[in-house]
Amino acid sequence: MNVKNNNMIYADFNGSSPLIPSVKEYLHKRLESELFSNPNAIHSLGQKITKGMTKSREIIADIVNCYPDQIIFNSGSSEGISQILHTILDNMSTKKNVIITSPIEHSIIPNALSYYESKKGFITKNVGIDENGKVDIEDLIKLLTKHHDQVAMVIVMAANNETGVFQPYSHIAEICKEFNVEYFSDTTQLIGKAEFDFEKSGLQYAVCSGHKIGSLSGTGFTIARNPSILTPLVFGSSQERGLRGGTQHYLGIETLAVALNSFNQSKHLLENLKKAKLKFEYDLKNSFPEVVIVGEKADRLSGTSLIGYPGLHGQAIQIELESCNIFVTTSSACTDNQPETSKVLKAMGIKDELGRGVIRISLNYSQGQEEYNAITESLKSAYNKFNKIKI
Amino acid sequence: MNVKNNNMIYADFNGSSPLIPSVKEYLHKRLESELFSNPNAIHSLGQKITKGMTKSREIIADIVNCYPDQIIFNSGSSEGISQILHTILDNMSTKKNVIITSPIEHSIIPNALSYYESKKGFITKNVGIDENGKVDIEDLIKLLTKHHDQVAMVIVMAANNETGVFQPYSHIAEICKEFNVEYFSDTTQLIGKAEFDFEKSGLQYAVCSGHKIGSLSGTGFTIARNPSILTPLVFGSSQERGLRGGTQHYLGIETLAVALNSFNQSKHLLENLKKAKLKFEYDLKNSFPEVVIVGEKADRLSGTSLIGYPGLHGQAIQIELESCNIFVTTSSACTDNQPETSKVLKAMGIKDELGRGVIRISLNYSQGQEEYNAITESLKSAYNKFNKIKI
Repeated sequence: MNVKNNNMIYADFNGSSPLIPSVKEYLHKRLESELFSNPNAIHSLGQKITKGMTKSREIIADIVNCYPDQIIFNSGSSEGISQILHTILDNMSTKKNVIITSPIEHSIIPNALSYYESKKGFITKNVGIDENGKVDIEDLIKLLTKHHDQVAMVIVMAANNETGVFQPYSHIAEICKEFNVEYFSDTTQLIGKAEFDFEKSGLQYAVCSGHKIGSLSGTGFTIARNPSILTPLVFGSSQERGLRGGTQHYLGIETLAVALNSFNQSKHLLENLKKAKLKFEYDLKNSFPEVVIVGEKADRLSGTSLIGYPGLHGQAIQIELESCNIFVTTSSACTDNQPETSKVLKAMGIKDELGRGVIRISLNYSQGQEEYNAITESLKSAYNKFNKIKI
Repeated sequence: MNVKNNNMIYADFNGSSPLIPSVKEYLHKRLESELFSNPNAIHSLGQKITKGMTKSREIIADIVNCYPDQIIFNSGSSEGISQILHTILDNMSTKKNVIITSPIEHSIIPNALSYYESKKGFITKNVGIDENGKVDIEDLIKLLTKHHDQVAMVIVMAANNETGVFQPYSHIAEICKEFNVEYFSDTTQLIGKAEFDFEKSGLQYAVCSGHKIGSLSGTGFTIARNPSILTPLVFGSSQERGLRGGTQHYLGIETLAVALNSFNQSKHLLENLKKAKLKFEYDLKNSFPEVVIVGEKADRLSGTSLIGYPGLHGQAIQIELESCNIFVTTSSACTDNQPETSKVLKAMGIKDELGRGVIRISLNYSQGQEEYNAITESLKSAYNKFNKIKI
């Protein structure tokens, strides 16, 4: 019997984080206040809300190490990414029509690029991925050398949502600088989940989604080294200095600061989380030598494991774990409904027999050994059950 | 002494609504639940959140009389308007380069159109406004006739944010249909504030911002008669059937349904609100014959008064009212920082002497006679005070 049966173990933080305790507590108190109005209004209510946003901006800037005015609040990473692509690609010289990207990006990138291909005449080239899920830097240099004068931009994410594998984004930023090519790296799985320093990153842009870090959904921000070059995607008045229209989601913005502050105060726990994860993976492989930890040899997000069992069906395992009140997914939330090997795993050369049998376990800094113990117990029980059926 | 001195009177609902009581109550309970996850996840948490969104979509569709699948959730009207303009104008034949709009639109429209003018070669023509702040239909027909083959679209709002004056949007929709021209009407000040029936409106699109109706900020929706023609502005996965990417702001969406439901149950109160407002305006003019009610003769939003006192300064009045805990603005939140006559009033032919002296009082359906009594008392006292200084 799983001792955690009566308490939910949420293990889908890469999909979305529940509101974290500090945010819930903040909101309970915040709801009691009278401070609800338009932050752009002339009266003191509006001014107090603006002060709250300014303070939030400063807290966030301090944590990610950027200037407050490099932060543009928006509805989240999808909007941030759409605006950055709009800014770079819609203003690109027609001679530069090649976009170099990776086959392991979040689905927003291929979806956006198919628009830029069909409507604006861009061509996409994919950089190679090694068996550990990491972008092949040599291949990137080859592509940049081959298409040099035609390259509009390079798009390679910072940490993969399915495998948790960190990508060498600072290295890529350096290379792109040498080639004088624009680079965008999706930092959605990085900010508030691992150490991130915008100033030192070498990146021109970074993006964050509130719902990935335990704040309210529908909120997030873009960091831009030079915000003034951004083209507005959402028009409006002078909100966010004209870079993003619409009355700001001020409650969301306040919870971004609360959530990032909690992360910052707890990030020392990530090392323990990682140790507990590696022990969990080791134990699992010891009991079931067939088990494959995808991207095992690469440096990964502390709490992320993508675990495959050849021949079993990931969704069956997921349902079995859910019966023990453990919530995992098969790959990313956005591709869950496709019962086939994800494109990320295909790019890593993983075959369907394994690819269909993966589950993603993604924990956050507040979790650790206790959760992995419960997950181990339930997962072993599930593997044993389905192995018997298979035989 | 103002009897309401210890209780805030919020009179800036056209700028933004505070969270309404039903939404606060909903959120307090909702925060206690465990239902926080990615609505697109495969597990039951995700599925339950999706069910909540589906139910919210159905409630909203029922209230505004459209089909649930005509609703696309987003971050609010600014995003909705940006997407609709992007859809219509980016796919427009280059022969059709004239946009007919009005000089009383919310600032998002001139700001967006200046982008389409400078980057895409469109030309904007303004339709005339009568002295009551209503679009001149004859002038619109003249413009449509003159530029017929070149007209890309017509943009005229449904209700003005400063004066509250209703525009003849259904009539304009009919005219545009006859001329076979696209029409967009900004319904931000209409939905959740006055009777609105999408099916009967004749409109192809409508937009709503959560923060204008008392739900969470950073949430809203577009209604599209034929959603499939929408071009995504925010890319993503298959969220909102591919029409708007990004993990949905599900808490916001739930509060949209709660807020619209409260409106729907209370809209019978609008008639009393209107009566109380007309009495308030009558009393004020009786005491101060110089007072001008902008757009007085036009049909207006039940709780909106734009009140001018020639020679006085609106901001001084606003501050005086705030000292009595009454929160009003001078014009729209988005232009509050400009101490000059708003472009809406200029378009109505109002001179600076009056234009600089206006304050906007905008109440919602839960308010009425009691609030107007307190506002009358404080406003009279303010007018008397500043009149003495003037002399």
